[in-house]
Amino acid sequence: MHREPLDAVRSYRARHAWRVLAEFRELLALSNVTGDLPALRRNAAAVADLLTARGARMEVVEHAGAAPLVTGRLGTGDRPTLGVYVHYDGQPVGTGWHSPPFTPTLRDGDREVPFPGPGDAVHDDWRLYSRAAADDKAPLIALATALDGLRDAGVEPAVDLVFCLDGEEESGSPHLAGYLDALRGRLRADAWLVFDGPVHHSGAPQVVLGVRGYCGFELTVHGPTRELHSGHFGNWVPNPALTLAHLLATFKDEHGNVTVQGFYDDTAPPGDADRAALAALPPVEDVLLERVGVAGPEIPDSRLADRLMLPSFNIRGLRAGDVGDAARNVVPATASASVDIRLAAGDRPERMLRRVREHLTAHGCLVLDRDPTDAERRAHHRIVRLDAALGYPAVRTPAGTPIVRHLAELATEAAGEEALTVPGLGGSLPLHALSRLDSPLVILPIANADNNQHAADENLLLRNLWYGVDLFTLLLTRRP
Amino acid sequence: MHREPLDAVRSYRARHAWRVLAEFRELLALSNVTGDLPALRRNAAAVADLLTARGARMEVVEHAGAAPLVTGRLGTGDRPTLGVYVHYDGQPVGTGWHSPPFTPTLRDGDREVPFPGPGDAVHDDWRLYSRAAADDKAPLIALATALDGLRDAGVEPAVDLVFCLDGEEESGSPHLAGYLDALRGRLRADAWLVFDGPVHHSGAPQVVLGVRGYCGFELTVHGPTRELHSGHFGNWVPNPALTLAHLLATFKDEHGNVTVQGFYDDTAPPGDADRAALAALPPVEDVLLERVGVAGPEIPDSRLADRLMLPSFNIRGLRAGDVGDAARNVVPATASASVDIRLAAGDRPERMLRRVREHLTAHGCLVLDRDPTDAERRAHHRIVRLDAALGYPAVRTPAGTPIVRHLAELATEAAGEEALTVPGLGGSLPLHALSRLDSPLVILPIANADNNQHAADENLLLRNLWYGVDLFTLLLTRRP
Repeated sequence: MHREPLDAVRSYRARHAWRVLAEFRELLALSNVTGDLPALRRNAAAVADLLTARGARMEVVEHAGAAPLVTGRLGTGDRPTLGVYVHYDGQPVGTGWHSPPFTPTLRDGDREVPFPGPGDAVHDDWRLYSRAAADDKAPLIALATALDGLRDAGVEPAVDLVFCLDGEEESGSPHLAGYLDALRGRLRADAWLVFDGPVHHSGAPQVVLGVRGYCGFELTVHGPTRELHSGHFGNWVPNPALTLAHLLATFKDEHGNVTVQGFYDDTAPPGDADRAALAALPPVEDVLLERVGVAGPEIPDSRLADRLMLPSFNIRGLRAGDVGDAARNVVPATASASVDIRLAAGDRPERMLRRVREHLTAHGCLVLDRDPTDAERRAHHRIVRLDAALGYPAVRTPAGTPIVRHLAELATEAAGEEALTVPGLGGSLPLHALSRLDSPLVILPIANADNNQHAADENLLLRNLWYGVDLFTLLLTRRP
Repeated sequence: MHREPLDAVRSYRARHAWRVLAEFRELLALSNVTGDLPALRRNAAAVADLLTARGARMEVVEHAGAAPLVTGRLGTGDRPTLGVYVHYDGQPVGTGWHSPPFTPTLRDGDREVPFPGPGDAVHDDWRLYSRAAADDKAPLIALATALDGLRDAGVEPAVDLVFCLDGEEESGSPHLAGYLDALRGRLRADAWLVFDGPVHHSGAPQVVLGVRGYCGFELTVHGPTRELHSGHFGNWVPNPALTLAHLLATFKDEHGNVTVQGFYDDTAPPGDADRAALAALPPVEDVLLERVGVAGPEIPDSRLADRLMLPSFNIRGLRAGDVGDAARNVVPATASASVDIRLAAGDRPERMLRRVREHLTAHGCLVLDRDPTDAERRAHHRIVRLDAALGYPAVRTPAGTPIVRHLAELATEAAGEEALTVPGLGGSLPLHALSRLDSPLVILPIANADNNQHAADENLLLRNLWYGVDLFTLLLTRRP
């Protein structure tokens, strides 16, 4: 073999695309709704078999009450080692699909095309529709195909891989930390690569260095013990919906700044390399504002990427009495808000929630974690119930970490387009558990941006599957 | 006849209580759910017959699409005339009844007692359970019984009565103004008396001089065109629930004062007699605070009766996204509040709603009566939709009006307990139409305060029925 391994694998997958799609179809036909343990066990076995067939030594580990974790190693053990994190569970299917979610279907635009056989043409702009086609089984097939292509070309990988294939990501990975603690000695790697999520909206590949953490709370203001006639009691008995409005207005000012004492104190400021990476990101603001139909961002002229480096305070929901045709003339008994806080690097969920509690106390509230007693009702003018969800911290690898540059170069070469180095995504992933493995953590998305992740008609653009094959080929053949 | 007419009628109804209850039972057995035209026609005929049998000249008038109005006159036409307003329709029945709502049932405490026959004892603390027993058929039976007693005693009434018996009160009396305009010439009276609602919580009789008016609005803040992922967009795209909280906080301060410019400007201040009546009302605040389970009123140490003389601003409901287990990590697309404004004497619904609109404009809102266009979304940072419900003005007869003292004296004598003169109730009734008859309007409640009006197990305490008989007896025999 004198050709570059990448050329060889590209040639291989062009010739064997029909076989790749057949194997992908089989994997996708396995229902993998998160939480469905029997189904997830079938997926775990299939995923382990997929990599065993490519020479990896795989093991399906199962802790009581948890979906299995599929782990294993590919390689000799004396080479640089990359950790590969993929999740094999999927979101619930919901409704609105044009083909059944576990009946993988190929389409060319709106037109269904039959799965190809040997020698049939396969077009890069076809899409494969199925739950988990993009999120997150695509990387498994991409890796298997890269390994098949390298074997076909007689190329020995230059790095080892260790695997952490999660069956509970869509449920928040509640048992991942426990699995990792138990397996820690077998999961050493020079870096852990998370294959999940979509490439940039522009179609450019991206190397993502962080995700936000998460915590949240339900806040309920307690008014009278029951709804009261607004004519007989309104204007005299305090209205909990008004109190809630006043309280929420104290959390964030009209300019988008959270006014909770210390809210931004723990956040790690971006380093020089992070700032450079942020500055290099293409502007997306005008397009996004047009798409979502608003006149401007919360903070005038702010850039989305910059705002994602800070913790957020978002009101997810409000509830009191009824509105519209269902509204009744009452003073509501309670008024509730649901809030999610996205955490930036350095923020700690428990500290954030403590600040929220202190903020409420400072604004005159008796803060309870249960409903008030009659005695408390008579003694306190402002009573709130705070139900906190602790969540998990953010993950952020500094852009100056040596392997980041290596990965960005490989992504650029695989895609034939300059890869973006993105210091942080807006979303939260329960990746913090992986940071206990003490290696740099980098996210390498493969799927197209319009993959309908979590929704009906989830799909993978074949061009993005081939990008994944190329990226794995380079990861396997270039030493970091 | 040498006895006082009141004594004579009391003696009559003691002897004939079984007959009164039999006639009441028959009237209550007629289903009268508001909006059920065929049922309401049967009620209108029964009510007209009831009074025709007592010598009134009755007429059932029916405008297209409306429940009938029963009108008529009792008397010679050359005497002082009192208008009698009663409504013969009832609330929908709902669920939770211990006996069917249109199967009138007598109970002594929890124990059902058979309807009495001639000579059987009847106790004042029995209750008659039925939809409309209290609200609002009791005054019709009380009047009929008073007339029977007077005839039995050979007493000629000293006043005439004209009747306005409404079949749509529980639907907001949408056609009442039209009926009154058509019948105006036949409805002249020295005062119009509204027999509806309960006596005071303390059990004392009351003469009520006003009810609040009503207007309201639905306010919807428009954010992004659809719910957005709070991780990807939160902290950058404006959150409509936060904007709503900020806006609501501008409407009413934390001390309970409405901060809309001009909100209190039109309200007629109470006169000397009104202030004296307010001061004479027994304190109810401590008992009510205990009952509703709050530490204090919105405005510290304020009295309920004083607050009812001012317009109110009450948030009936809030809606945005979801809360609790249903909450999702989104920036909501819209956030809505439903508000009712109770109007005091002098306030005009259209002026109040204009002030609300101006307040929103002053706080930077583009105020629409429809959803925004794409162009509006891109041009305006704060967009709200305001859907207004115009309602109706308040009614208030000044406490210094000559007939008020007369009525209070009669109520005191009928009840054997000092009657309260109440300048204004908290609730709203569509009585404004009656004020086009250009006579003082006074509400004379008969029913017990715990009558479960509008709810399951509506009931009338017989003692209150007898109070009604006595009150009508005095109204008929004492010239104002």
